[in-house]
Amino acid sequence: MSKGVTFARGFSGAVAAAGVKHGIPERDDVAVIASDRPCSAAGIFTTNQVIAAPCVVTRRHLAGGTLRAIVVNSGNANACTGEQGEDDAVAMAKAAAALVRASPYEVAVASTGVIGVPLPVDRIASAVAGMKLSTDAGEAIARAIMTTDTKPKLAQREVGLARGPVRLGGVAKGAGMIHPHMATLLAFVTTDARVDSATLRATLDSAADRTFNAISVDGDTSTNDTLLVLANGASGVTVGEPELPTFTDALTALCADLAQQVIADGEGVTRVFEIHLRGALTDAEAKLAARTITTSNLVKTAVHGADPNWGRILAAAGRSGARVDQARASVRIGDQVVYDTGSPRAFDADAVRRIFGGKRIGIEVDLGLGPGEARAWGTDLSAEYVRINADYTT
Amino acid sequence: MSKGVTFARGFSGAVAAAGVKHGIPERDDVAVIASDRPCSAAGIFTTNQVIAAPCVVTRRHLAGGTLRAIVVNSGNANACTGEQGEDDAVAMAKAAAALVRASPYEVAVASTGVIGVPLPVDRIASAVAGMKLSTDAGEAIARAIMTTDTKPKLAQREVGLARGPVRLGGVAKGAGMIHPHMATLLAFVTTDARVDSATLRATLDSAADRTFNAISVDGDTSTNDTLLVLANGASGVTVGEPELPTFTDALTALCADLAQQVIADGEGVTRVFEIHLRGALTDAEAKLAARTITTSNLVKTAVHGADPNWGRILAAAGRSGARVDQARASVRIGDQVVYDTGSPRAFDADAVRRIFGGKRIGIEVDLGLGPGEARAWGTDLSAEYVRINADYTT
Repeated sequence: MSKGVTFARGFSGAVAAAGVKHGIPERDDVAVIASDRPCSAAGIFTTNQVIAAPCVVTRRHLAGGTLRAIVVNSGNANACTGEQGEDDAVAMAKAAAALVRASPYEVAVASTGVIGVPLPVDRIASAVAGMKLSTDAGEAIARAIMTTDTKPKLAQREVGLARGPVRLGGVAKGAGMIHPHMATLLAFVTTDARVDSATLRATLDSAADRTFNAISVDGDTSTNDTLLVLANGASGVTVGEPELPTFTDALTALCADLAQQVIADGEGVTRVFEIHLRGALTDAEAKLAARTITTSNLVKTAVHGADPNWGRILAAAGRSGARVDQARASVRIGDQVVYDTGSPRAFDADAVRRIFGGKRIGIEVDLGLGPGEARAWGTDLSAEYVRINADYTT
Repeated sequence: MSKGVTFARGFSGAVAAAGVKHGIPERDDVAVIASDRPCSAAGIFTTNQVIAAPCVVTRRHLAGGTLRAIVVNSGNANACTGEQGEDDAVAMAKAAAALVRASPYEVAVASTGVIGVPLPVDRIASAVAGMKLSTDAGEAIARAIMTTDTKPKLAQREVGLARGPVRLGGVAKGAGMIHPHMATLLAFVTTDARVDSATLRATLDSAADRTFNAISVDGDTSTNDTLLVLANGASGVTVGEPELPTFTDALTALCADLAQQVIADGEGVTRVFEIHLRGALTDAEAKLAARTITTSNLVKTAVHGADPNWGRILAAAGRSGARVDQARASVRIGDQVVYDTGSPRAFDADAVRRIFGGKRIGIEVDLGLGPGEARAWGTDLSAEYVRINADYTT
């Protein structure tokens, strides 16, 4: 069965080995995702001001409103590479455009890997020229875009709308900048629903805010982060006003599935914790507090050590910028209330240690101030993370 | 010779073992710093909204304008302890006030250690009651306030002003929240100069901004951070307008000395790096970019692994919020230019690896945009940091 980005009708893809990363010639490291007809499209890119050439080029091409294909390489980020980098990204778009018989302006480009090294663009273009597109390439594409990921990450789902079923599929790699040098979150979603670009953009923003933007491995932001969605309408089913909530839910669920795969496969990650932040003055403040907790090295090491150290959670909320009144706050770890409206509560430390010892940990922080609510997901910080990131090039 | 906080004339101190931290009864864990006359005083406290009881009480007492003493305990932070915590902090102030024959409102209180556990205040009060003040207690005080610090941190200097010499001395522990649970930056400075409280406050703000506030070990902020300066005038030398620059420089140098001792002794720290950020639009943006680089886990692990991974430095600046134009930025590691106005430069990777392998590393980032400049100091992130912080209570 066709999976991932080739699950939706009208989408195909291919992979090839171009030897992008020096020393690994046999590994597939270039992929193309193609549609048999023009797609409406939307994208979200890194907020880092140091932005890689492929993101600059793709943003420009997206302004045209339609895309036919995405071309991706792993092993080299084509970031901090000056004007040459931009020329190389355009060359990748041209090679993929020739393959799918489209304009280069209808091709998105993405790269992930080492920063500041010129792209071996001729080898990539030759590899793309020799590709054969197939509707079975979903899993191979998921593998080709991996860097230090240990597992391919793909997902798909079919959802029934009033006018018929539509399909969505997706692929992802990396989380935030957990894979430095070989970094970057890339995610591509395809659907055969018929959706205009403006609607797609609004839907993607909402989905990303509750999924990809709510996960953190180390709080760093890559130069190359890219999330794209392509809708080709091959199902013949239009998403209008009445179908939009169902479609949005399906896109959000697909993104959540990919985001959870990404975070669970972060470098050195042994545990994932969810912060459910309630009682903030506003949703925005809830988000700020929840995300500050998920990026705190002290919370992350406590989770890693299964240390029932709830003071760190509260202290992270207190420095987040969200309004916090310690006399009204409460903290619950799993089913154990450890801090209740301003006072520490006697709790079963062994039980909390057991909860922290699990693969997935639920933590609820209630600020007791208002209706604001948010969820965010973080990972433990392990000695293994340090080892991987300290020893990357040596 | 008298050192640290008892170096300046008119200051004395004492330490005692009150068994604050369960299981370590013989270790000195309570200290008093006293002046033989009223001092003008200024303080800076944690910006965390989850603020510990001793900070709340000390802020209130500082409003009175003069202090006679500081009472400190290690082993328990008296944080997240509700109303009882505030009563306990006041009880500490009363005990020290009786010892030095002053009003409790002239006593500052500080605590460091575990969060959310009631303070054994009766044992602390008894220990204080039995103290004998001595002008030789400087080093003992530095040891008594240690938690997981491996070395006592103290400094002193005499500076000649037009009207005569004045002395300054200080003591510190911890850095940011590197010592979670057993966390907190505490620093106390004493001087026999005669300075009014308003001048002292302005001088302290300026000194802290360039020293204690420019160091980072893990980016977390404790509930208990406290920096106090007491000036008792025992030298008979008044710091007026003409002497202020010299006095400010001396206070800044003393704080810098203590801050560098603190950062070099951070948990698991094997290397310290200095970011010299130039060419930002403003000093404020330079500070923001420099501090974001020093808190990036990716930069910290690269430094730990002696990995010449300059892309991480630039990417951290790019996400800091400061204006960055990658086409105008340059990065220098030691004497090696690795990125020059927008383009990667061929550099000697072995030389950079050797520079990163040293104890102290200088990194210069020039954004090429304006006159803004700042310095900040960070530490490497080691597997040892994770081990210490993951296994604290287990």
